Amino acid sequence: MKLFGYWRSGATYRVRIALALKGLDYDYEPVNLLKGEQQEPAYLEKNPQGLLPALVVDDGPPLTQSLAIIEWLDETRPEPPLLPKSARKRAEARAIADVIACEAQPLQNLRIQKYLRHEAKFDEAGVKAWLETFVGGALAVVEKLLGRSAGRFCVGDAPTIADICLVPQVYAAARFGVDVSKYPRLAEINARCLAHPAFEKAHPDNQPDAVKA
Amino acid sequence: MKLFGYWRSGATYRVRIALALKGLDYDYEPVNLLKGEQQEPAYLEKNPQGLLPALVVDDGPPLTQSLAIIEWLDETRPEPPLLPKSARKRAEARAIADVIACEAQPLQNLRIQKYLRHEAKFDEAGVKAWLETFVGGALAVVEKLLGRSAGRFCVGDAPTIADICLVPQVYAAARFGVDVSKYPRLAEINARCLAHPAFEKAHPDNQPDAVKA
Repeated sequence: MKLFGYWRSGATYRVRIALALKGLDYDYEPVNLLKGEQQEPAYLEKNPQGLLPALVVDDGPPLTQSLAIIEWLDETRPEPPLLPKSARKRAEARAIADVIACEAQPLQNLRIQKYLRHEAKFDEAGVKAWLETFVGGALAVVEKLLGRSAGRFCVGDAPTIADICLVPQVYAAARFGVDVSKYPRLAEINARCLAHPAFEKAHPDNQPDAVKA
Repeated sequence: MKLFGYWRSGATYRVRIALALKGLDYDYEPVNLLKGEQQEPAYLEKNPQGLLPALVVDDGPPLTQSLAIIEWLDETRPEPPLLPKSARKRAEARAIADVIACEAQPLQNLRIQKYLRHEAKFDEAGVKAWLETFVGGALAVVEKLLGRSAGRFCVGDAPTIADICLVPQVYAAARFGVDVSKYPRLAEINARCLAHPAFEKAHPDNQPDAVKA
């Protein structure tokens, strides 16, 4: 398998965690989002959708969309599972993943922040208020959901797709100045995940295209 | 089962389509999003998360997040399936659903449009440009993905989770003035879905809380 990604892309980070939890080896080809390389002919030839991350799994076009890729990995390489066994617990894990993927990440990502700053002429305080409202709001929902589902991880005592989404989200929130200390369950589970070898392997700082500050 | 929803909520509309495709009966309890009823004590008592849609399926708290609910329905009531059989096709169907759920809908929904108009002081032209950029951009990606996956429906010849997301998205896009005629595959499949009895039953106009113009 080959993963097209970018060290700081939250969606790429999710897929790296899933691959590491499954213990799967893969080739990694960095595509620099900051430079817009995902829209350049060299990349579009490999992936006409121009999306990141993308996972080459066979002779067909690469798979795209991080959650769809993670579900595919879990269906084709079932051990260890990335979803709980019971249907209700699976729904709880997916709900947490979806709050992050559908309500937090889309409102904080690079292209949105660019648009807010350059097209909509938000100043830094405006961007901060936006992120507090939407990203903070989504994290508050996650904190509530964890109240009913969490054990050592987001749902029960093993990492699932919920933790796979949580950790990159907390990484981004910290980077963009959203205060996560208000959410103690979330912060505790994030810390436990960060100490897990698969999450460590997948961390942005440990990727070949990482830029050291 | 009991569904808490709102006639025009795109995420509720998705769940209604899934329930109708499965031929499942359910009670429907409208929660008026425009009036903010999802944050009022009467609703929070039933669903502490204050989210819509929510599906009561047992004595536990209602399930939330439309995609998680749809996956739960498919796991617990497998016929007719809402996902294709092969893992690759399932990934393609989920990828289309995720482009809509993670890249289009979050950037057009009620609370975002309110924020753009009232907090960020966008004028109507500004809101229109925002929607064209993000919602139009996501629809263009869907159109590309359909090029490799579509048959009579988004992936192959039967409705899947992709069509379940597509139809409410096109409904919202039309409502908010985003031109979908530029995407011929998407428009053709949307029209085919609208003629399907399950999609008709789930249409916003056919709900008890619909407000006629």
